[in-house]
Amino acid sequence: MWIAELSRRTDVPVATIKYYLREGLLAPGESVGATRSRYDETHVRRLRLIRALVESGGLSLARVRGVLAEVDEESRELHDVLGAAHGALIPDDLTATIESRLRVDDLVASRDWRVAPESHDRVLLAGALDALAKVGYHLDEDLLETYAAAAAEIADAEVARLPSGDGDRQETVESTVLLTALGGPVLLALRRLAQQSASARRYGSSHLPG
Amino acid sequence: MWIAELSRRTDVPVATIKYYLREGLLAPGESVGATRSRYDETHVRRLRLIRALVESGGLSLARVRGVLAEVDEESRELHDVLGAAHGALIPDDLTATIESRLRVDDLVASRDWRVAPESHDRVLLAGALDALAKVGYHLDEDLLETYAAAAAEIADAEVARLPSGDGDRQETVESTVLLTALGGPVLLALRRLAQQSASARRYGSSHLPG
Repeated sequence: MWIAELSRRTDVPVATIKYYLREGLLAPGESVGATRSRYDETHVRRLRLIRALVESGGLSLARVRGVLAEVDEESRELHDVLGAAHGALIPDDLTATIESRLRVDDLVASRDWRVAPESHDRVLLAGALDALAKVGYHLDEDLLETYAAAAAEIADAEVARLPSGDGDRQETVESTVLLTALGGPVLLALRRLAQQSASARRYGSSHLPG
Repeated sequence: MWIAELSRRTDVPVATIKYYLREGLLAPGESVGATRSRYDETHVRRLRLIRALVESGGLSLARVRGVLAEVDEESRELHDVLGAAHGALIPDDLTATIESRLRVDDLVASRDWRVAPESHDRVLLAGALDALAKVGYHLDEDLLETYAAAAAEIADAEVARLPSGDGDRQETVESTVLLTALGGPVLLALRRLAQQSASARRYGSSHLPG
């Protein structure tokens, strides 16, 4: 397809596509004559990935470049790439207290989760627990377990929907990153709706049905 | 307590506390003499709330002011305030397609969730579904149900931990907003850890235990 169709299919302006090409975020198309290039489905998928990371993940272009570098590193084992792409989605300046890090390590061990010891996601969780503690909210063990059990059910359902890994490796990684970046807001929005409902049932409300 | 202790208890610098006082985000303390004021636990709680909203919720001060106005509106029914505080945490420019809005309405009805028809959270969820659709990801009905079931379990556990509502109304609302703003990152971090584990099990990895 020509660049105009690529733009139409992905809803990314032609000028932005050209910018991504210049910046090397998007591989060049197949040259046809001196000034025109043809693009294919790999370009469509890559643009959708960039768009998802920038617009919904709120990532800077530098950070997007980091994620794409992990996605493109063909020599790495598939699972390692998924972990590395996760890591690239996390802020650089992430820190956490040792207490929270140990609590996270205990949780991961008790649930028998297979997570690399150096995974950034451990620090991300520990930092999130610290943020609650800083405002005086103690997240008790039972609630943490409820969160963890819900997270496990969600993750199992998500990973079951990813491509098999025997096929297009790039597609597998891209699907994972998309679902991680854009599935989160869906889950959080559902939680808010469910909170409203639970709160209506607990505290009552005169003008709602039920 | 004096302002120095208030600063120490909340980890908010004295200069920032004075700024919040000038801006009216924090109620004045009790005047003691011409230049000193005493503060109490309501100030501690309010500062923690502001801090949580600004630092972890990433809200602007203008938006924090909106949330606090809802929290402080004593004449409103408790449940309405919770919904309104939720609403104030949502971007103004939120939009969604009619298809996604209908899908959300169906989901809320099928789960018998008590959510006001005009709730911003419905639009938030519809917009999150649209964001996935835009990058070509179709979130199937089963996965949406898995998310919704997990969200319901989480919300029930969260709301069960809130103060009874017979006591300090302000405290109830503040706890809700804190847990909504800061519990989300905990849940998302757990989901990422669980995803890594599910992916390790599915795609295999040579150097992880289990």
